[in-house]
Amino acid sequence: MRIGIDLGGTTVTAALVSEEGKILARRETLTRAQNGADSIVDTMASLALEVAKDSPEPITGLGVGTPGAVDVTGRIVVTSPNLPFRMYPLAGRLEEACGMPVTLGNDANCALLGEVFAGAAKGCRDVILVTLGTGIGGGIMVDGKLLVGFNGAAGEIGHMTMVYGGIPCNCGRKGCYEVYASTTALVRMAEEAAAEHPESLLRRSADSADSGMNGRILFSAAHAGDAAALDVLARYEDAVAEGASSLVNIFEPELLLFGGGISAQGEYLIAPIRDKIYQRIYAADGLPRTRIEAATLGGDAGIVGAAALVKP
Amino acid sequence: MRIGIDLGGTTVTAALVSEEGKILARRETLTRAQNGADSIVDTMASLALEVAKDSPEPITGLGVGTPGAVDVTGRIVVTSPNLPFRMYPLAGRLEEACGMPVTLGNDANCALLGEVFAGAAKGCRDVILVTLGTGIGGGIMVDGKLLVGFNGAAGEIGHMTMVYGGIPCNCGRKGCYEVYASTTALVRMAEEAAAEHPESLLRRSADSADSGMNGRILFSAAHAGDAAALDVLARYEDAVAEGASSLVNIFEPELLLFGGGISAQGEYLIAPIRDKIYQRIYAADGLPRTRIEAATLGGDAGIVGAAALVKP
Repeated sequence: MRIGIDLGGTTVTAALVSEEGKILARRETLTRAQNGADSIVDTMASLALEVAKDSPEPITGLGVGTPGAVDVTGRIVVTSPNLPFRMYPLAGRLEEACGMPVTLGNDANCALLGEVFAGAAKGCRDVILVTLGTGIGGGIMVDGKLLVGFNGAAGEIGHMTMVYGGIPCNCGRKGCYEVYASTTALVRMAEEAAAEHPESLLRRSADSADSGMNGRILFSAAHAGDAAALDVLARYEDAVAEGASSLVNIFEPELLLFGGGISAQGEYLIAPIRDKIYQRIYAADGLPRTRIEAATLGGDAGIVGAAALVKP
Repeated sequence: MRIGIDLGGTTVTAALVSEEGKILARRETLTRAQNGADSIVDTMASLALEVAKDSPEPITGLGVGTPGAVDVTGRIVVTSPNLPFRMYPLAGRLEEACGMPVTLGNDANCALLGEVFAGAAKGCRDVILVTLGTGIGGGIMVDGKLLVGFNGAAGEIGHMTMVYGGIPCNCGRKGCYEVYASTTALVRMAEEAAAEHPESLLRRSADSADSGMNGRILFSAAHAGDAAALDVLARYEDAVAEGASSLVNIFEPELLLFGGGISAQGEYLIAPIRDKIYQRIYAADGLPRTRIEAATLGGDAGIVGAAALVKP
């Protein structure tokens, strides 16, 4: 029995995870990042000890998925965008606080590990997870091992160039993949289309919603056959496929998964993206093709993957 | 002692290579691809047997670098752009013809293996070679192993998207990295600049050359301080750096090498590219940075790397 912790900027969740990757118990609380790193450690430790009480067997270890860069030893958070960690020895501190062996991993990598441990990538050794969210995160597994780079910071697939000199990205560069294919981009495209097509269902749905446009409104209008929404979706799928095709041409993974909340749309979203990728990839005829699928663990992938960090 | 064979569309070269990666003897002849696959095997076998005569020690094996896709076992050429191989069991046929154990590899991957065996990447386990030529080839090593993909066709870094919907590429897609950063692109940019600047040294040098613009004319005008040539070179370096930055953000290799004939320009070309990459990469402060260097084996990298395919 293992414990996985999904550490986010807002909430922290601990779960008891079986050796088969099943979540058996779960506790969640606020991260309260403003109280500082040591306070976050205490919060994680008490959450872990609480879920441990539900375990019928001894706990073999605890894995933590955290935003930001983890050093190659899995002991230190080098830096984290939304948390007060800078060269912080999180694994050691948490071991002291809860008495269990701790391993750290990047949260996007944990989502991939979760899908490999117990989800859509079960048993795969060459797989890429493209997480479509506010930005685009990625996890890459090559020959059964996470690609972490010589400094632990690999896998920033959201910051591949897609349009040289294009729209500015939050990272300071221009034209990154995530500027065109994150859900933020999808909502931006939907807002533009709604402004251009005042008669569309897309516009009317957004106008009558309290908080304006969002992904749910877009998909709902598209499912209803609204032309403006369908056009946005087709252009979005094209952008997602374009960047993913670069990844397939570089890595030739056995499997490429799309994750993030949007992947709950399943084949409605993935089938057109798959077709567009197959039109673009370079591998010769006669070679097996990369499978393109939706991730299946949804929001649980990160916590199951954090538990998968635990060494046997 | 090993034998390396560099199989090209025009010529085939065999070399006797020491366990330290030194070339001790070499034979070259025409490939004569039009005579068919079996004839190429005979040519390779007699070349190999000739260089073997120069060896003071027994030959442990023979490695072949070939254009195109090699299957993951290193026995079969799946397909090759300029050679009459299609699902062709080249390793087996060549073993029958020359009596030595044979291993096949993709030629771009062999160039990387050569640099790791005895060149600029000696001892590195996480390294990318970007070969700037007519197109852009790539070799990627992760944790000491070549990245070949589950179907043997990985590493097509020249076909990452750099401009979504951009200039058409020979591969059928649009806006691939090699359309903007191959030496073909450099010559195209130099031709455009020469047309725009009739007073430039760049234009005058090209006009007085028998075969028009080429890379040598561009570099020579740039070295002489010609403004038009310097502007072309700066824009070319920017394009090279843009795509290479995507690779660094994805892989975080310890070392990224630039190869191809143009890399003989050394620091004159590489120093500005290195600066531009360092301005673009995403890794956090406090983490070690990818080293950016020129490859050092030049045209010998492929043959030394073919010899490196030989299993100990």
